[in-house]
Amino acid sequence: MQVLLKNCGFIITQNRDRTILKDFDILIEEGRIKEIKKGISVSTKDCEILDCRNKIVLPAFLNLHTHSPMTLLRGYKDDLELHPWLQEIWKVEAKLKDKHFYIGAKFACLEMIKSGISCFLDMYFGMGSIFKAVAEAGIRGFLGEALMDFKEEGRTEEEIKKAEKFADFCIKAGNPLIKPVIAPHSIYTCSPSLLLRAKEIAREKGLLFTLHLSETRKEVFDCYKEYKKKPVNYLKDLNLLDEKFIAFHCVWITREEISILAKSDAKAVHCPISNMKLATGGVFPFREMKESNILIGLGTDGACSNNSLNILEEMKVACLLQKWFRWNASEISAQEALDLVTINGAKILGINSGSIEEGKDADLVFLNKEHFSLLPSQNLISNLVFSCSREAISDLMVRGRFVMRDRKVLSMDEEKTKEEFKKALEELIA
Amino acid sequence: MQVLLKNCGFIITQNRDRTILKDFDILIEEGRIKEIKKGISVSTKDCEILDCRNKIVLPAFLNLHTHSPMTLLRGYKDDLELHPWLQEIWKVEAKLKDKHFYIGAKFACLEMIKSGISCFLDMYFGMGSIFKAVAEAGIRGFLGEALMDFKEEGRTEEEIKKAEKFADFCIKAGNPLIKPVIAPHSIYTCSPSLLLRAKEIAREKGLLFTLHLSETRKEVFDCYKEYKKKPVNYLKDLNLLDEKFIAFHCVWITREEISILAKSDAKAVHCPISNMKLATGGVFPFREMKESNILIGLGTDGACSNNSLNILEEMKVACLLQKWFRWNASEISAQEALDLVTINGAKILGINSGSIEEGKDADLVFLNKEHFSLLPSQNLISNLVFSCSREAISDLMVRGRFVMRDRKVLSMDEEKTKEEFKKALEELIA
Repeated sequence: MQVLLKNCGFIITQNRDRTILKDFDILIEEGRIKEIKKGISVSTKDCEILDCRNKIVLPAFLNLHTHSPMTLLRGYKDDLELHPWLQEIWKVEAKLKDKHFYIGAKFACLEMIKSGISCFLDMYFGMGSIFKAVAEAGIRGFLGEALMDFKEEGRTEEEIKKAEKFADFCIKAGNPLIKPVIAPHSIYTCSPSLLLRAKEIAREKGLLFTLHLSETRKEVFDCYKEYKKKPVNYLKDLNLLDEKFIAFHCVWITREEISILAKSDAKAVHCPISNMKLATGGVFPFREMKESNILIGLGTDGACSNNSLNILEEMKVACLLQKWFRWNASEISAQEALDLVTINGAKILGINSGSIEEGKDADLVFLNKEHFSLLPSQNLISNLVFSCSREAISDLMVRGRFVMRDRKVLSMDEEKTKEEFKKALEELIA
Repeated sequence: MQVLLKNCGFIITQNRDRTILKDFDILIEEGRIKEIKKGISVSTKDCEILDCRNKIVLPAFLNLHTHSPMTLLRGYKDDLELHPWLQEIWKVEAKLKDKHFYIGAKFACLEMIKSGISCFLDMYFGMGSIFKAVAEAGIRGFLGEALMDFKEEGRTEEEIKKAEKFADFCIKAGNPLIKPVIAPHSIYTCSPSLLLRAKEIAREKGLLFTLHLSETRKEVFDCYKEYKKKPVNYLKDLNLLDEKFIAFHCVWITREEISILAKSDAKAVHCPISNMKLATGGVFPFREMKESNILIGLGTDGACSNNSLNILEEMKVACLLQKWFRWNASEISAQEALDLVTINGAKILGINSGSIEEGKDADLVFLNKEHFSLLPSQNLISNLVFSCSREAISDLMVRGRFVMRDRKVLSMDEEKTKEEFKKALEELIA
């Protein structure tokens, strides 16, 4: 089965030269981009041909950090800093059942599809149920059971078993769009032995390993108090750092730590909105990370600390914060912000997408070129980052298959999902 | 002619107690809110009855600072700080003709309507043409010719004449939705005599007087160098400050200056996105302004330094910046942010709207209660500020008249406006 995208108004390729093509066609076969040129012709049998003259086509977005079921808690406990907030959140989370994980994640997928996100990196509880939701939604998920033993010896093994069980299940399921990751929560919620055992499993199975890192000053201070080391030094001494290590947040981090992360080829994910909303006070050291050649992604974090899963907004706020904080309007360009959510995200996760090039998977987002938020079209990349509304996102394709057309989600019944979501929430509150 | 809004899902009244009503009706007569209660019945003749059970109804938003025709320059000269940016912008602006002012403003109105904005405070050139655009769009405009003599004596009188001419024209036109304001640009572009003469006219005609104030450190420094005074002290000594003085930005301002503004009952407008994008480094002193009882509004600034006219996003970024900068997650609440763009905005402009109460003008925005970005609905105000998409805004009513229904703008032909906009832009670039 082929799909031919004819006369694309613009193609923002995100290839090495960041080429933008005008009036080109894209031929897709078996989920991959087969050919990109002008005037492709095919035998119309077995090929859907789409007129894309009013579209901007670009690589679909990757959301590199979220906790998908937290859509259920959107608007819950605003106005708290991270640590008191976590205490409140953990109380509710203890009440969540499988159906909540499922429908919360499904609703998150609905929102992410509407936001042009084809792939996300998740950390939460109840991953079996989340797996089901993501599989139904038809987008890519990198899913990791959140591991926390609160440094109580008796709990470590149980957490490890959870991680292993889900990873094995996920690998066995063989869904080409869904991969397991190993996701201990943080230094302050995990014992060193939990971190070590978790990394062992990740190495055994060749999986990515993710961790909240240096999100608050308190966390850094507590780490220093307990281990006499800065967080990154502590992780290094545990031998946890390598090219499959992904650190979320990193807003309170020193140059020395950046250099350690860089040497180990670890990756970093910036979540500016969540950091700001939770009043962390720190700023992701974008310039220093970039100069150290650390690969950086962008994440929304959960819908309870953002409170949306809108990666367009996240790009904009990332730019605003860096420009303003460094007193330098050219601190980060719109192009760099777009890179974070496309090509960088794909590289961090090790998947064959993030740019529009022959041989790449067809994970594509389509925008209405004529939407008011994209006019005038003299600076497409700037518009994408600084003015584009989610409303302008018309279609989303994952591995050659449309999951949204003309803003209608095809992979699920939107109304039914909303109803289930509301019902699950009522039961949770009751 | 009456309009009856039946069974409104929620009404966010923004009245003194910030009451939220469930399943109430609103009766509108001659552009005003006549009655708010449950189960209003009317003779159906001459009354349009609308089922609003799936709507959230709230006061329409006020955008207290913009330069409407700058939609034409969206995405132009990103990544520059204010002063070098202004140099570039002034070069293009010198080429603008009436048709550009008209269509740029019209396109801005289109975007503002789609963003739920019923009223805006504008400063630009070519106000005659902007007046026409706003009148056609059917929303409220407070319009002021931008005055700049660059401290050249020969230019002062010409600027004053421009201001007077437009104000007289506007008053004479008698459009109930459009009012003139007197809008010198800034301390650094206006001579003291221009500021004085402009204020004279404003006082003579009873008009609001607006000014960019303390937007950058450079501006403050230059003022001190030239006049040996801080900007607010300088304005005070010129006797410019009073209850009709509206200051935009105020991100580099001292406690002493805040106290002077407060004593004179002057108003302040916060534009966080523009301040951040232009890397001003300063932060609007929200807490200190609030504690001094200064009335604060919120503005998007122009589409060239934002780059959108999305007041929802502006509220969110205002909260993020204050929370994060002050290391205090409860520094500003969602309710306070909503106040800025509703009741405060209306008070600053002195109009009879900004809340839903009997006797107020019916300037209303309607949201789709079931839009994914507004679910779950456990915390409506938080959702509005932190997660609501523009897409969720379905209808906009100004003084009892719908200018948008189901996201279709009724007061203009959207396609034609876009075409004219693109054409004018081509001519500008050519």
